[in-house]
Amino acid sequence: MPDADPVEAFAADVFSRACTSREALEHVTGKWSLLALSALLEAPRRFGELRRRVDGVSEKMLAQSLQTLERDGWVHREVRSAIPPHVEYRLTPAGCELAPRLLDLIGFVEDRLPAVHAAREEHDTHR
Amino acid sequence: MPDADPVEAFAADVFSRACTSREALEHVTGKWSLLALSALLEAPRRFGELRRRVDGVSEKMLAQSLQTLERDGWVHREVRSAIPPHVEYRLTPAGCELAPRLLDLIGFVEDRLPAVHAAREEHDTHR
Repeated sequence: MPDADPVEAFAADVFSRACTSREALEHVTGKWSLLALSALLEAPRRFGELRRRVDGVSEKMLAQSLQTLERDGWVHREVRSAIPPHVEYRLTPAGCELAPRLLDLIGFVEDRLPAVHAAREEHDTHR
Repeated sequence: MPDADPVEAFAADVFSRACTSREALEHVTGKWSLLALSALLEAPRRFGELRRRVDGVSEKMLAQSLQTLERDGWVHREVRSAIPPHVEYRLTPAGCELAPRLLDLIGFVEDRLPAVHAAREEHDTHR
């Protein structure tokens, strides 16, 4: 948040480098975070399940991403006392509001992928 | 796109590491790209204007981001033959469909910033 302003106190502004909303935004739009949040919208998952779903992510990067998302309040980490005990990740209520926005973005880009490829070809031809 | 499948030929899947939609997604969710696209939704802008709006971005990073966005077909770069001539950036029709989604995400995170800070405090206290 920027310095308090008499009129717009507490108004976050991601365009200002001083605003912490920029960091919070980066935490959810990071490559692995974005995919992990979207995968958790499908279902709560154990670490290993999540790692298989987010194809290509390393253990270290997934663990780091989940820790950041948990700290920011988007993901809940729960130790389930089953036999054997295991850890399950699921979205918090805030995460449930966030993740559909990310999934919408993913779907949009997936749908436009042929156009993106066409644009690249056009661009590279005219260079 | 993944290898062609008889049923779902050309279906992009961002969860697959082989799918180029993942790279396309990263291009629009990168820190500076996301902010530049959102700033261009407000208005077409010259490079210098855009750099002032996206507070904190270096010339090099902004130029790189714009070049990638132009190549992927989200941003149009136009040399205006005014006196003196200058370059203007604006969203393409595809970019005009994309940018509101990014702005929605930005607004969502900005609005939730107090909750994010509260979650962090709660998290750090219980460690």
